[in-house]
Amino acid sequence: MTGRLAIVGLGPGAASMRTPQAEAALADATDLVGYGPYLDRVAAEPDQRKHASDNREELGRARHALLLAASGRRVAVVSSGDAGVFAMASAVFEAVEAGEPGWRDLEITVVPGISAMFATAARLGAPLGADFCAISLSDNLKPWETVLRRLRAVAEAGFVIALYNPLSAARPWQLGAAFDLLREILAPATPVVFATAVSRPEERVAITTLARAEPSAADMRTLVLIGSAATRTIERHGAPPLVYSRRSVPA
Amino acid sequence: MTGRLAIVGLGPGAASMRTPQAEAALADATDLVGYGPYLDRVAAEPDQRKHASDNREELGRARHALLLAASGRRVAVVSSGDAGVFAMASAVFEAVEAGEPGWRDLEITVVPGISAMFATAARLGAPLGADFCAISLSDNLKPWETVLRRLRAVAEAGFVIALYNPLSAARPWQLGAAFDLLREILAPATPVVFATAVSRPEERVAITTLARAEPSAADMRTLVLIGSAATRTIERHGAPPLVYSRRSVPA
Repeated sequence: MTGRLAIVGLGPGAASMRTPQAEAALADATDLVGYGPYLDRVAAEPDQRKHASDNREELGRARHALLLAASGRRVAVVSSGDAGVFAMASAVFEAVEAGEPGWRDLEITVVPGISAMFATAARLGAPLGADFCAISLSDNLKPWETVLRRLRAVAEAGFVIALYNPLSAARPWQLGAAFDLLREILAPATPVVFATAVSRPEERVAITTLARAEPSAADMRTLVLIGSAATRTIERHGAPPLVYSRRSVPA
Repeated sequence: MTGRLAIVGLGPGAASMRTPQAEAALADATDLVGYGPYLDRVAAEPDQRKHASDNREELGRARHALLLAASGRRVAVVSSGDAGVFAMASAVFEAVEAGEPGWRDLEITVVPGISAMFATAARLGAPLGADFCAISLSDNLKPWETVLRRLRAVAEAGFVIALYNPLSAARPWQLGAAFDLLREILAPATPVVFATAVSRPEERVAITTLARAEPSAADMRTLVLIGSAATRTIERHGAPPLVYSRRSVPA
């Protein structure tokens, strides 16, 4: 079996944020597998085959990629950001564990990428400069009660919070419910950031406070950052404010 | 004032994991500022000046970089991994906030990098594929009670945990105390990973369980990953096991 599979993080969008390792893995592939809009970011050669699928079919896409690799193809599964952060890598390994025993012998590599979370943080300053966490707000894969319990735990303990998958057409109410919970715990002036498509032409970044945060500022592609008591905003003349989190916690 | 300052994440070490954006920021600089071993990773041109400093002098180094930029130099402050994750970006913004008002008008950019956490996760599989957090175990900047409270909160709530700065010569006992706490909460079979210098020639990665985890497997440069109930290990023939976290939480 000479096929192999690379799970590749494309980074947030800009070519300047894609690593040489990712470019090499893409160039080596005979088959590119992924969600259509992510595949569109890859300039394929004429002899490379693209296999686009819907965003919600992660496990089916993973199995398809494994079947291609098992048949001898060199497959690159592409994800936006980092492939291991609420992206395709976990789905592939779930499929490996549940699938054909021979899939475990395939050469499978994961190529990390600049995550949306860190690209957003860099655009703002350093909001993730203290203890932080990342939570997917989707309840497609876990009970909503688990999401709320986790949010409460990290807000009470003082973590900066990055929210992935904040809402969708099928679940428009979840981000508002999350803000309601967080307002019980965190100060009204806590910085909140909505960041969409960072580093791409359609980039939108908005800085507000927890008191003023409106779920309508987000769509399914938005990353929402919620500060902690350590998160500060530095106002500037003629430039957006800087947002960063202090490294220290007072005794 | 024409000086400017870029805070650059070099990635974990391998050149293939450094972004073109980071390379461009380094090439543009007249002055490179950072911890000596990180500066050694940058091949400077003869007309670029390197300013190396000790690892613990982050705030002094930040002020030095800001003074250079304010004097008209083009400065790159380098960090390993991502500059915004327990690295130099927060220190620079702390110095900006506390420093000369003119520093706020400097052009300051942050260039994200592949973090040690995501490079390690990619090497293993996808251990950070579910809700996760990152905690610095150092009590140089926060009370040890805060560290313990945060660890307890995230372990009880089911997060995968990445521990930065797990121990040092001055505080050799902290990682053991953290494991003791986590053993009260998590199953003995919970996967634990020690990863040092990922992607560099001296890379060391060890996979064990919480029951067997020994603090002596870590040094100050080690990233320690602790799984959750969602974290699984897939054994393979003739290859290291894969470690990944399932995306779903049973209801």
